[in-house]
Amino acid sequence: MISLTRKAEFSAAHYYWNEAWSQEKNEAVFGRCANRNGHGHNYTLEVTVTGDVDAVTGFVVDLKELKEVMEREVVGVYDHRHLNLEVPEFKVMVPTTENIAIAIWNRLAGKIKGAKLERVRVYEMPDLFADYCGEA
Amino acid sequence: MISLTRKAEFSAAHYYWNEAWSQEKNEAVFGRCANRNGHGHNYTLEVTVTGDVDAVTGFVVDLKELKEVMEREVVGVYDHRHLNLEVPEFKVMVPTTENIAIAIWNRLAGKIKGAKLERVRVYEMPDLFADYCGEA
Amino acid sequence: MISLTRKAEFSAAHYYWNEAWSQEKNEAVFGRCANRNGHGHNYTLEVTVTGDVDAVTGFVVDLKELKEVMEREVVGVYDHRHLNLEVPEFKVMVPTTENIAIAIWNRLAGKIKGAKLERVRVYEMPDLFADYCGEA
Amino acid sequence: MISLTRKAEFSAAHYYWNEAWSQEKNEAVFGRCANRNGHGHNYTLEVTVTGDVDAVTGFVVDLKELKEVMEREVVGVYDHRHLNLEVPEFKVMVPTTENIAIAIWNRLAGKIKGAKLERVRVYEMPDLFADYCGEA
Amino acid sequence: MISLTRKAEFSAAHYYWNEAWSQEKNEAVFGRCANRNGHGHNYTLEVTVTGDVDAVTGFVVDLKELKEVMEREVVGVYDHRHLNLEVPEFKVMVPTTENIAIAIWNRLAGKIKGAKLERVRVYEMPDLFADYCGEA
Amino acid sequence: MISLTRKAEFSAAHYYWNEAWSQEKNEAVFGRCANRNGHGHNYTLEVTVTGDVDAVTGFVVDLKELKEVMEREVVGVYDHRHLNLEVPEFKVMVPTTENIAIAIWNRLAGKIKGAKLERVRVYEMPDLFADYCGEA
Repeated sequence: MISLTRKAEFSAAHYYWNEAWSQEKNEAVFGRCANRNGHGHNYTLEVTVTGDVDAVTGFVVDLKELKEVMEREVVGVYDHRHLNLEVPEFKVMVPTTENIAIAIWNRLAGKIKGAKLERVRVYEMPDLFADYCGEA
Repeated sequence: MISLTRKAEFSAAHYYWNEAWSQEKNEAVFGRCANRNGHGHNYTLEVTVTGDVDAVTGFVVDLKELKEVMEREVVGVYDHRHLNLEVPEFKVMVPTTENIAIAIWNRLAGKIKGAKLERVRVYEMPDLFADYCGEA
Repeated sequence: MISLTRKAEFSAAHYYWNEAWSQEKNEAVFGRCANRNGHGHNYTLEVTVTGDVDAVTGFVVDLKELKEVMEREVVGVYDHRHLNLEVPEFKVMVPTTENIAIAIWNRLAGKIKGAKLERVRVYEMPDLFADYCGEA
Repeated sequence: MISLTRKAEFSAAHYYWNEAWSQEKNEAVFGRCANRNGHGHNYTLEVTVTGDVDAVTGFVVDLKELKEVMEREVVGVYDHRHLNLEVPEFKVMVPTTENIAIAIWNRLAGKIKGAKLERVRVYEMPDLFADYCGEA
Repeated sequence: MISLTRKAEFSAAHYYWNEAWSQEKNEAVFGRCANRNGHGHNYTLEVTVTGDVDAVTGFVVDLKELKEVMEREVVGVYDHRHLNLEVPEFKVMVPTTENIAIAIWNRLAGKIKGAKLERVRVYEMPDLFADYCGEA
Repeated sequence: MISLTRKAEFSAAHYYWNEAWSQEKNEAVFGRCANRNGHGHNYTLEVTVTGDVDAVTGFVVDLKELKEVMEREVVGVYDHRHLNLEVPEFKVMVPTTENIAIAIWNRLAGKIKGAKLERVRVYEMPDLFADYCGEA
């Protein structure tokens, strides 16, 4: 068993807001992220897959296919978008780094041929990232 | 003469749009950046100042003051903001990397005590940056 | 279960020295790190916490609180200090990268509300780091 | 138990090719990597070892010894070499990132005194890496 | 006047060799780079252009066009290639970092519409790079 | 004319202190850097040289020689040292980033065969650096 990790980037806008709360409560909990005009980030995504190395090709996964899946399922949907306004899953959950990692896991699960999705890591900033490895 | 450069970061949303153009023209020129919902970046700012080294302190500029000026004049105004909607200069010019560098230069010029503002560099992404050194 | 990692930095001086050994023995074991005048590093600290994502906020941990705990318990104590001379735990153990990771774990354990401390990673240099995950 | 990770770099040429296949098949599977003239990379190697911290030295492993083993067993053999043409293990297996990680594990296993080899990570590019932790 | 810099990457093999010299002389001058099997690098290219900011678009240069020129003239020709064997200019000059920078300048000069090519920077490794700004 | 830049690193301790001032004055001017126990950094040094490319070798400067000069004149003297206590020039001037850049320039000037020393850049932290290009 060996794992392979590929990175990708996307730039998106977001804000943190709970419709059930007052503006004061939102600002108290979410600070400057509660600004409804939105702000944004260069997100870095790391997708790790695990499997056996194919004895002939030396690959755990076809890198071109992995790249295409990441592009089609995630980068093509999130990049240059406002996550709250344009990405369905964030109309019902706050686009925190944690929730973005879970959402990307759910988008990729079952889509990568021949290898097991092992971990999704999302960096919102170089000094902040979330890891999700699916439900136990 | 020696120069000193200090970096800072801010996260902001923006879009590229010219009110005088149709949506088609905007999309043709600005591509995916023309999405009016906005997207965003982690911007990195580098401010370079030049001067003589003070013989006693060994400083070209008081680093604490430089940090305060950068925070007060730029980071505190741009960070966690939507540049088009909340920063005055970008209501009349498109917030491209080039224009952001010029706008930051204009915000800092004349505010740094005892040293000459030499260059403003703005990274929109790790692989794209603009430099502005003022008018000749 | 999801994990969130936040980075911080501190700059400190240290040396490696065992009082029970001769200078020759110290230099043989610790090399140039045995210089009693001290040398120093820009340390990078990564703190990883694990927990359930709060269904309302989308947070595993309140990021502002995590930052405050890291600042109060570690960065405020280690930054711009000589570890051997000014930080109590390093009067009795050598401030190697390994021991710094353990010491930071002990400083943070039990202080982070609502999430489990999962791992402490300390970089002494970009090409050298230690990970500690507590006692099994 | 604590782990320590040390990085090293080597620059090497390689290509992907299966002698049993036609040129068309090789290009279909391996893309531009099938170019027999070779291309190359700056590889980054991370070696992680685990063990108990020595109560006297504060070390899991003697860093100088770890560096020497990595240099002698890996960097000295791979650096400035053509992996397919000059490194024995890649005459019989394709030098993919996955296989390089396994080969380095096999070169290092049993050679690091006093600590357990925990993981070998190999970056072929900053956005692509493989991890190998040995056979379960 | 403002400048804009865009980065790109390519992975290539090369070696240093002067046909007029003996193997001993080549190895004395070029060290391990004289290995005729080749080795390789992940090169990073930075292209800087200078010009006036267009008052309407806020651009010094059309970023999409700049990317296309860099791809067509350089990355598409050098990436996944053996520089000595497959790129014409390196059949007559040694592909050192300096010569690669000059060759890229010559490939790009006059191809970027509406802005002046200001500088080409080439990183062979993260700790080594060459800058070329054309003939005075 | 082309320039070549090589990086190196050194880890050192330092403090900022003016013997002619009271402790209060030192702390007011130098902040936490006035702590006489010292703190430290991983410094990154970039040395840029300029010259003509040798038509035969393709080099502006012999890289091995440049590395040896940087090692002998700077890294071997500063690395794992306390700058104030062990490096002569910092007994009479404060080891600020600016002064370290000037001191390194003075150490290297006239020592690099066949090329002109163009610039010395010193990073004290990834977000702070000084450039010195000699006296006009």
